Amino acid sequence: MLHKNRLFTPGPTPLLPAAQTAMASFTAHHRTADFRALFQRVLADMKEFIGTKNDVLVLACSGTGVMEASVSNLTSPGDQVLVLTAGKFGERWTGLARAFGCHVEELNVPYGQTFSLEDVRARVNTFTRAVFVQATESSTGARHDIEGIAKIVRAQGEETLLVVDAITGLGTTHLDVDKWGVDVIIGGSQKALMMPPGLAYCAVSDRAWKHMDKTTSPRYYFDLRKERKSAAKGETAYTPATSLFAALGAALEFVRGMGNGDLAKGREELVNNAEKCAEMTRAGAKALGLKLYASAPAAALTAICAPEGIDSGKIVKEFRESFDAVVANGQGEMKGQLFRIAHIGYYDYLDTIGILGALEHVLAKVTDKSVEYGAAVRAAQQVYARSVEAVLAAR
Amino acid sequence: MLHKNRLFTPGPTPLLPAAQTAMASFTAHHRTADFRALFQRVLADMKEFIGTKNDVLVLACSGTGVMEASVSNLTSPGDQVLVLTAGKFGERWTGLARAFGCHVEELNVPYGQTFSLEDVRARVNTFTRAVFVQATESSTGARHDIEGIAKIVRAQGEETLLVVDAITGLGTTHLDVDKWGVDVIIGGSQKALMMPPGLAYCAVSDRAWKHMDKTTSPRYYFDLRKERKSAAKGETAYTPATSLFAALGAALEFVRGMGNGDLAKGREELVNNAEKCAEMTRAGAKALGLKLYASAPAAALTAICAPEGIDSGKIVKEFRESFDAVVANGQGEMKGQLFRIAHIGYYDYLDTIGILGALEHVLAKVTDKSVEYGAAVRAAQQVYARSVEAVLAAR
Repeated sequence: MLHKNRLFTPGPTPLLPAAQTAMASFTAHHRTADFRALFQRVLADMKEFIGTKNDVLVLACSGTGVMEASVSNLTSPGDQVLVLTAGKFGERWTGLARAFGCHVEELNVPYGQTFSLEDVRARVNTFTRAVFVQATESSTGARHDIEGIAKIVRAQGEETLLVVDAITGLGTTHLDVDKWGVDVIIGGSQKALMMPPGLAYCAVSDRAWKHMDKTTSPRYYFDLRKERKSAAKGETAYTPATSLFAALGAALEFVRGMGNGDLAKGREELVNNAEKCAEMTRAGAKALGLKLYASAPAAALTAICAPEGIDSGKIVKEFRESFDAVVANGQGEMKGQLFRIAHIGYYDYLDTIGILGALEHVLAKVTDKSVEYGAAVRAAQQVYARSVEAVLAAR
Repeated sequence: MLHKNRLFTPGPTPLLPAAQTAMASFTAHHRTADFRALFQRVLADMKEFIGTKNDVLVLACSGTGVMEASVSNLTSPGDQVLVLTAGKFGERWTGLARAFGCHVEELNVPYGQTFSLEDVRARVNTFTRAVFVQATESSTGARHDIEGIAKIVRAQGEETLLVVDAITGLGTTHLDVDKWGVDVIIGGSQKALMMPPGLAYCAVSDRAWKHMDKTTSPRYYFDLRKERKSAAKGETAYTPATSLFAALGAALEFVRGMGNGDLAKGREELVNNAEKCAEMTRAGAKALGLKLYASAPAAALTAICAPEGIDSGKIVKEFRESFDAVVANGQGEMKGQLFRIAHIGYYDYLDTIGILGALEHVLAKVTDKSVEYGAAVRAAQQVYARSVEAVLAAR
């Protein structure tokens, strides 16, 4: 059969058509009134999308670039920092903080797990300059309790900052940045915003801005204070990825449309959509006797354990060869153990039912066991039908 | 949930991304070497796509425009013609032929049916200047036996022409234009070629070209002899829809890719794909207790009868409102009785499974009867699995 190349990876994710056409047609120079108008509108809308009154900056880099910026701007060599790590992206925080000379403490829990708040509380103290964590750990599909962690960090006072990598979390999980007191929250364009990689962004609290005047880690391209000053004049410090700004503008309009003109409401709709796709997918996987990898699964993606004795690489390969559907293998040590289906951004009912249908054929092929066709799909449909009934009942 | 607008209509059909980008970026003037190169490549490729050595012309109009051209170029007022009609598009032939003063005989069978070859044989005689028919009648989802009809027409000799509207038939059904002796075959861009409306095309036999010198019906824009002369010089007679030619070029490359570099093979793959999607959909509909409208269903689309006492408009509306999926209602007198799901062009396994999953919710909603979730999907999956097994067994 004909194959459409379909991304079910936790970034890049499927592109919004309106974002594609916007970036294809955008040609303005970046030091013009046209670009400044777009830039300022995008920054204002990004505050609403993230749900914060804090300053938002959008940089030409991948998410890791803004992770680095949060380390280099908020720490000095020798600073004590705490990394909460439960996967490959937690480990990235450790690598970054060590690269900038921080004294890194780690709260390390096994892949697939999340942190107990007691353990977090026991490891944070007044010497901790910053706590680094993921909202959702994309390598394991786990959701971390940012609200609970924020409470613990905020109880330390103004000298301890909380930095949250929400690259796959923003737009897929409920986050109240200002109320919870998250100092830096980080996102990337190729996730819930339904556009290609190339932009990453962060919202920075007043507390964090104050710290930056004291820190001494080297930074130049990622100097957030310089970006903030430029942004106040409607510009970026260095050449921005202009076409991606155009795409971002279109994506934000789409999210606003999802909220009937209210961008914040649109973001919640996007989160609800990911939650629904994830709930359908979890029900489908369970109906096939598959186990979920994460103890507290995120809505961003579902990490599913390969059946006993099967290399998950075979599953990934079969999805690709038979359906041109790209799902993600496990990363690092998890490679071969699990596969990951994303729900971030531009996915709908038909995508979710389609990939579960395909999963049944894939399983039948790689396990040589009989699979009851329609079982995963039916379980997902029941989730969908119940949610529709619940909405009708609530009216 | 988030809704992607999805066309399941028998034209326009989903757009091929490569065609979208090609038409978005094409800017060449039509009287330049660049456009002539594209134009000549497209005309040559169109012969392979249609599967004919006859001259192919591509005009800026809808399919009906080329239907008119075949009437106005091949008949004179007062000519006796036979229209084989079994639906709204059959009736269009009658309207066109009467508009140009033909003496129209009709072989009229009820909607959803097709013609018996005995009846056709009984109605064609040496006075019949042309026989007009559809390859697939998009209003009812029926497939007509073009090979059988062609045999009868060809037996009349050189004075009787066969004109086939294959607007939804090309790329969805096997047609051997030259071997069967089809004099004019007609297609449209917004069908199996996976691009927007705006171009229509035809392949014209030597026999038909000879007739054109004798016919006297008025024509100017649609004068095929003028177009043929221009085409020989690498141009169109009037301003061509240039960006759509660019899209057509990209679509033909995609079909060639489906055939691993062989365009004719790619066309057969496209036909097989439509056949598979149609077979899956028919199995799904039957598993839900639904009846097919057509006695000999085409692969281009599946026309499904609404359940007893239900207006099919409700089904169409529910697909749209709950899933933003656009399926077609019946046309004319068939409105309210049936709904139509297309398989023309750019559809894959996930699309087909997704729309069948959605159909189950739609039925549950409009009938208030309990629907066994997964039943239609499972039946379609079994069709798919059997076809994969058959391919493996044949290796």
